Amino acid sequence: MTVKPDRFLADLHELRQFGASGIGKGVVRPAYCDADIAAREWLRGRMDAAGLATHYDPMGSLFGLAEGRSLLLGSHSDSQPEGGWLDGALGVCAALEVVRAAKEAGGPPVSVVSFQDEEGRFGVTTGSTVWSGALSLEQADELEDRDGMRLSEARGAMAHLLGDWVDPKRFTGFIEMHIEQGPWLDQAGEAAGVVSGIVGIRDMRITLEGQQNHAGTTPMHLRRDAFQGLAAFNALLGERFQNVVTPQTVWTIGHVSLHPDAHSIVPGRATFSMQWRDGDAERLKRMEDIIRTTAREVAEARGLGLEFGPMLGLEPVEMDSRLRGALEAAAEAEAPGKWRVMPSGALHDATNVAVHMPVAMLFVPSIGGISHAFEEDTDERDLVTGLKVLAGAVARLGG
Amino acid sequence: MTVKPDRFLADLHELRQFGASGIGKGVVRPAYCDADIAAREWLRGRMDAAGLATHYDPMGSLFGLAEGRSLLLGSHSDSQPEGGWLDGALGVCAALEVVRAAKEAGGPPVSVVSFQDEEGRFGVTTGSTVWSGALSLEQADELEDRDGMRLSEARGAMAHLLGDWVDPKRFTGFIEMHIEQGPWLDQAGEAAGVVSGIVGIRDMRITLEGQQNHAGTTPMHLRRDAFQGLAAFNALLGERFQNVVTPQTVWTIGHVSLHPDAHSIVPGRATFSMQWRDGDAERLKRMEDIIRTTAREVAEARGLGLEFGPMLGLEPVEMDSRLRGALEAAAEAEAPGKWRVMPSGALHDATNVAVHMPVAMLFVPSIGGISHAFEEDTDERDLVTGLKVLAGAVARLGG
Repeated sequence: MTVKPDRFLADLHELRQFGASGIGKGVVRPAYCDADIAAREWLRGRMDAAGLATHYDPMGSLFGLAEGRSLLLGSHSDSQPEGGWLDGALGVCAALEVVRAAKEAGGPPVSVVSFQDEEGRFGVTTGSTVWSGALSLEQADELEDRDGMRLSEARGAMAHLLGDWVDPKRFTGFIEMHIEQGPWLDQAGEAAGVVSGIVGIRDMRITLEGQQNHAGTTPMHLRRDAFQGLAAFNALLGERFQNVVTPQTVWTIGHVSLHPDAHSIVPGRATFSMQWRDGDAERLKRMEDIIRTTAREVAEARGLGLEFGPMLGLEPVEMDSRLRGALEAAAEAEAPGKWRVMPSGALHDATNVAVHMPVAMLFVPSIGGISHAFEEDTDERDLVTGLKVLAGAVARLGG
Repeated sequence: MTVKPDRFLADLHELRQFGASGIGKGVVRPAYCDADIAAREWLRGRMDAAGLATHYDPMGSLFGLAEGRSLLLGSHSDSQPEGGWLDGALGVCAALEVVRAAKEAGGPPVSVVSFQDEEGRFGVTTGSTVWSGALSLEQADELEDRDGMRLSEARGAMAHLLGDWVDPKRFTGFIEMHIEQGPWLDQAGEAAGVVSGIVGIRDMRITLEGQQNHAGTTPMHLRRDAFQGLAAFNALLGERFQNVVTPQTVWTIGHVSLHPDAHSIVPGRATFSMQWRDGDAERLKRMEDIIRTTAREVAEARGLGLEFGPMLGLEPVEMDSRLRGALEAAAEAEAPGKWRVMPSGALHDATNVAVHMPVAMLFVPSIGGISHAFEEDTDERDLVTGLKVLAGAVARLGG
């Protein structure tokens, strides 16, 4: 099986014209916007031309189906509100080229997918979540974007295109190629990463309720300052996590909202996000226990009220050993000694697809570790190496 | 000189009908609103009835002038957007009653003032700031409220009432009676506080600039998390201040804004307010040095950019010893052993008036230390004790 790098790169560059931001190779193509639907229609034409039977499911995920049972390759073609040209689009275009190369080589049969709303305009990996059965279409339709538009209304923009669900049993497995979105491969000068597993994620909102008060007349020892509670919680958490975490574990307080948020008023309330990720479900649980215990201790010691919001989470997913083995063998053939096995700290559609079938993932380097930004980029030589590793794995698996 | 508590309390209760919130004794009477202007016109009628020559200055501060040189008493009658019935209104009504009692006793001559916009719809103690000369009327006219309305436009609503500036040389000194707005007197069961000085205040905005990044793929040791920078700064500051501060010193981070403020993104920027107050200008300077040094060290250690906004400040003001002595003697006579000397942690018009003449302040307890809220209240027995202390001081000073 011989892939044609020029055909693949030409596709990628043509696809980035849909929603081109005008800044570098940046792309503005959130799910269901005009540019997203136009890009999907263009992809559908490419799939038709490659001899695949094209089909949109009720969420707007686009499938290019080979006859009979086949391997499924792909990712997603929607972008962040400010995104790059590669992200998921890379995995879709690479899949297309492997389909064409496999056809030209007389097999194996390969299908392609571009999932809808992976970037979470309405949820998180929304299209593949609904396909996985974790969320019903009726529930998903109630989700709202930042501007208060419902998913049901957004789906309406492509209603004339949508068909029924695709039966996951048609597929023998799923391989998703994607940019790394982190710094490791780029820093090491490596060309590819074979994913060992996708980390699990926990996310919740925590509220500390103190006493809003005059910042001039309220002495320090009588204050119940909600921001100081948050700061104490954050510091203690960092200490206590040291005994539990690995170098791959991450945790983030990314959102903070104080009330009334005024220079001259002691903060009466602090609401903040607490998110943590790790490849080990047991470690995630131990971290949750530490978070809850630490928040309770800080709240009690400082006379603060405490409220935990609902905890959202996705479980860690191990990659399938057969699919992963094929990727490792192909990586060693294409980039001997210049690849590694690594976890994925970002979520991907593969997490949801794993409910239905064996899954694996392949990473290519992100320059400077940058993604979800107009500056996102990867050296075209690395893109082509990734394509060849993907094709090599498909050839080894034989469908 | 004999004050009449009933007449004084009747005035206070009548005044709170202007802008009554309908919740307890709460008041909604921000500067220049209809209720504020109506309240000033009602006060003007009361001043007329007490034999004073009434006059609005260009800012809308209302004066009731005795003939010749006199002591000036008063405070302000505008309220916070959600305020209580006492705050500055107390000092204006108490001043009125002392004028009447002094008249009835055949002297000394006493004038009254209700400054405009003490609560800072447009600035901070705006009316007395302009009267003090620290800000020109032209500069003040450019100030905007939260809704973008200019002070010049707001003043227009009472343009038909406004006259020229009142010459500060008419006054031998200024005594402002006010609620404490803090917990000390209430907690100690004391009836009055004679103010030793009004604390100085420093206020600035600090920005830490990190690297916005993916919260799943960016390992902890490679992050430049602006919120973690803020937390580290806050913790170090608390430690370092311990060697410098007194129990009266306060500092507050009341406003925090993260960018992009999302659960899944390592914060790339944290902008926050840093405010500190103390009665000693040298201590304020030492604290400023610690703040700047600590922020620089944290920024350097964590690879963060650092920007200090302009520092706003008002200097600490010592109360005049002669006026203060009169208040102390009167307090001991009216509430033997049940009063104290204390600093004011809140700003007051007296800070500005001190540019022109000797000033002093008298506090009465705030129940639960609550102010700037509908729940603000003081036991009427304490209000009357305060009135008697004020009258006693005026009698001792003899004008």
